Amino acid sequence: MTTSSDSDDPTVSNPDHYSTLWENEFVRVLEYRDTPGTETTPHHHPNSVMVTLSDFERRLRLGDQHRDVKLSAGQAVWLPEQRHAGTNTGSTPTHTILIELKSSSTGIDTHAASLGPKL
Amino acid sequence: MTTSSDSDDPTVSNPDHYSTLWENEFVRVLEYRDTPGTETTPHHHPNSVMVTLSDFERRLRLGDQHRDVKLSAGQAVWLPEQRHAGTNTGSTPTHTILIELKSSSTGIDTHAASLGPKL
Repeated sequence: MTTSSDSDDPTVSNPDHYSTLWENEFVRVLEYRDTPGTETTPHHHPNSVMVTLSDFERRLRLGDQHRDVKLSAGQAVWLPEQRHAGTNTGSTPTHTILIELKSSSTGIDTHAASLGPKL
Repeated sequence: MTTSSDSDDPTVSNPDHYSTLWENEFVRVLEYRDTPGTETTPHHHPNSVMVTLSDFERRLRLGDQHRDVKLSAGQAVWLPEQRHAGTNTGSTPTHTILIELKSSSTGIDTHAASLGPKL
């Protein structure tokens, strides 16, 4: 298990792409936007639900693991707690909403099977 | 405070409009769709985040209270735990995703100020 630090927070590590829309005692809600070719630096997500507002293709990386995901606008997927970096590998901008759960477990699953969303 | 029953579950009371996309130990994720003029019967929502996938206008009712809300596609709003019924008062279909929090408080706030989403 790896512990998180402030620099793992995507709004800190990648502020050009992640912004906080609002938060309360239960959730923090982020908006993510990028353009084709954008690469993020490694960052941490708590257990989250991601709702896609655009179609996009993305390669997620953690160490020597990677996983390619292709999502359509209007999907709602579970993103289990994890650390990763991502690259927009498609030809369209990415636009998503991330609902981070504050009460979620603090364990980080580094298995390849959980890299990226559960589809 | 009112206690919930199965018939308060919108997927039970209004199955033509609410469907469960998936659930896990932390959340249940619902999709809501309707057309102009659709009225739902009273139902209960736990603390939830609603992500809008369409523009829509809606009148929410609880007893003799009502509140009109107008939302745009791509918004993420907090829906505090509540019981209500709703009518699509606009000219466009409604399409939303509701992320219900399973760990949320079980108190129901019946104050008018919390009827509908927090904007």
